[in-house]
Amino acid sequence: MKILLKNALILRDVRSEPEISDVLVKDGRIAAMGNLKGLIADEVYDMSGRLVMPGFVNAHTHAAMTLMRGLAEDLRLREWLTEKIFPIEEKLTEEDVYYGTMLAQLEMARRGVVAYADMYFHCDAVARAALDFGMKVLITRGLVDLDSDKGRLRQNIEYYERWNDRDGLIKVGFGPHAPYSCSTSYIDEIARVALDLEAPVMIHLYETAEEKYELRDLLETSLKYCKVLFAHCVHVKDEDIRLLAQENFFVVHNPTSNLKLGSGIAPVQKFLAAGVQVCLGTDGAASNNSLDVWHEMRLASLLQKLYDPRNISAEQALCMTIEQGAKAVGLTEGRIQVGADADLIVVDIDRPWYVPRSQIKNHIVHAGSSSDVFATMIKGRWVYYDGEYPTVDAEHVYKKCEEAIRRLTGTTS
Amino acid sequence: MKILLKNALILRDVRSEPEISDVLVKDGRIAAMGNLKGLIADEVYDMSGRLVMPGFVNAHTHAAMTLMRGLAEDLRLREWLTEKIFPIEEKLTEEDVYYGTMLAQLEMARRGVVAYADMYFHCDAVARAALDFGMKVLITRGLVDLDSDKGRLRQNIEYYERWNDRDGLIKVGFGPHAPYSCSTSYIDEIARVALDLEAPVMIHLYETAEEKYELRDLLETSLKYCKVLFAHCVHVKDEDIRLLAQENFFVVHNPTSNLKLGSGIAPVQKFLAAGVQVCLGTDGAASNNSLDVWHEMRLASLLQKLYDPRNISAEQALCMTIEQGAKAVGLTEGRIQVGADADLIVVDIDRPWYVPRSQIKNHIVHAGSSSDVFATMIKGRWVYYDGEYPTVDAEHVYKKCEEAIRRLTGTTS
Repeated sequence: MKILLKNALILRDVRSEPEISDVLVKDGRIAAMGNLKGLIADEVYDMSGRLVMPGFVNAHTHAAMTLMRGLAEDLRLREWLTEKIFPIEEKLTEEDVYYGTMLAQLEMARRGVVAYADMYFHCDAVARAALDFGMKVLITRGLVDLDSDKGRLRQNIEYYERWNDRDGLIKVGFGPHAPYSCSTSYIDEIARVALDLEAPVMIHLYETAEEKYELRDLLETSLKYCKVLFAHCVHVKDEDIRLLAQENFFVVHNPTSNLKLGSGIAPVQKFLAAGVQVCLGTDGAASNNSLDVWHEMRLASLLQKLYDPRNISAEQALCMTIEQGAKAVGLTEGRIQVGADADLIVVDIDRPWYVPRSQIKNHIVHAGSSSDVFATMIKGRWVYYDGEYPTVDAEHVYKKCEEAIRRLTGTTS
Repeated sequence: MKILLKNALILRDVRSEPEISDVLVKDGRIAAMGNLKGLIADEVYDMSGRLVMPGFVNAHTHAAMTLMRGLAEDLRLREWLTEKIFPIEEKLTEEDVYYGTMLAQLEMARRGVVAYADMYFHCDAVARAALDFGMKVLITRGLVDLDSDKGRLRQNIEYYERWNDRDGLIKVGFGPHAPYSCSTSYIDEIARVALDLEAPVMIHLYETAEEKYELRDLLETSLKYCKVLFAHCVHVKDEDIRLLAQENFFVVHNPTSNLKLGSGIAPVQKFLAAGVQVCLGTDGAASNNSLDVWHEMRLASLLQKLYDPRNISAEQALCMTIEQGAKAVGLTEGRIQVGADADLIVVDIDRPWYVPRSQIKNHIVHAGSSSDVFATMIKGRWVYYDGEYPTVDAEHVYKKCEEAIRRLTGTTS
């Protein structure tokens, strides 16, 4: 299967400038770039007036929480969680998680996301949703230190065995929820399993000011040697920031969720200055309420400019969202190059906010938005194209989600 | 001319809940609402699956600065202004302002704005652009206290005489730039003229921490009795906030620009608690870089939630952006009701982030974005409809703007 994208403006990676090029996609990968005039393909798309660039990575979410979008507004994190979220989550079935995840993927694809990192439960449903849709996902099973929890770690291992590397779309990692909900010894146990399987770990870290554990203690466990995605990191002490500057560590900044729940603003500029690798996430749709990593990119830049307008250039913002996200989640290259999976988005730049054309990268970050996404391709397959979702029946997903929400919230309307 | 919008979900005003209704537009106004089955009209649109709501108001911008979009990034306000903006503005011609304003209007219409408040120069060009496009604008001429400036105040009066009330689209007010660039006596002189003409005044107030004048002194001038739009108000002292709680005063909050230039976060929650009327603006595209008041709405809410997540509900955010904006700028009602001008937007809610449907108002603020706007009608005329601009040739505007930018920046590419 050969797909030819003709006459596009291509942003090969976040550090280059856009250039006119054709792109040939063959069997899911980029097979050729440059002037490919005369080349024959199964499908040919004229992309004149459009920008083709690497897709975004959403490095922290709880996808199925789209089912709770807008249901828990204007609350502090504790009330949000205990009064609104937990009572609904108790009732979630595997089918709910499947459709909630599918709804999340519809949104993410339409917003230009090609890969995401998820932490939730009923992860077989997450895996099936990703395969059915054709989206790349790093799956982690949320783990907390309860009596009943040894079963969950075993479950996470089974998810790994069942789904890891399936179709080149799925990686499975481990999801110890947070240092306040998991003991140090339990985190160590999880980390040793992850190291053994060479699987990444995702953990919430210092989301709120109330979290009082020591990062130093955490890093005396085997976690120090794992690939780790530390979500949030809003309240890392200044003197601890350098502890996060390791090649195997990534901070996932979730600026919208951190504002919306009143958690604060993560010290992203300090992280970058210390050499910490930072990528971006949306968190779940119950605290965001969108899964729009493009919005996170713009907001991440604006929030650091509050301290100094010289902070976070457009290129740095793109780097976090694409290059570092790709590195953190794995599964995608974060660049369009021969041999890489064809994980790319097509952006309609024939819009007033992309004038002047000389400043495309600045416009992407500070003037454009995710709804400029015209199409999204993952592993050479269109999963979103001009309002349509070629791989799933969106109306069916909406219907199943609305039914689930009515059941979960006990409303009948 | 009768236009019938059928089967829409209608949000009549920001305080209601959406309901299914038809809407009849006749000669620029809302003529009837409800079930209008069988009614005959010149044009009939089936709006099933779409939301019709009052358009947004951008209560502070410098429209023609779209020509400088993306050209002055990552700078502090002083360098931004003196090194980048002033040198370009010196060279701006009336034709540049016309096309820059037109580009701004293309963007604003596509983002759901029906009326805006502008402060700039070459205001004949702004007026002509608004009339040619069919957009509502409150025009103010920026005034500073220079030797040469008496001519500018006279110019502002001439603009008033020439354009005020033209076609129901234009109001002309007065634009003393700021208390640091205009003496108290000059502001008093301008305010007396404005009072005499019953015209509003727009002025920048405490945009940065460096501004050291006293609000009390300013309000001992005739300004106290004018309708005033105070733009920014980031650094109003706590004890002065109550001075802004007057029925004839409006604070225009510009959160993106204030972050991007490192100015700070305006104390919006304190304003609201004190009974100050707050609306939203984008500022110019050289410091934003979009004219997306929908984005300002979401950001305004998120930034106040940083202090307490219970701050700024979705309804309050909508109220600032629509109802208060309409009150501040005049020209539009901020509600869809019989007798009011048909200033409305059509939002495509057949998108994943509008599920569940029971929470539409929350989704508009926290999950949707301006690119969900399907069409924008001003005074009964479509100015944006599904990617097209019925009143102007967008490609011609882009071309003229790119030419102007090349000339203004001395680049040839």
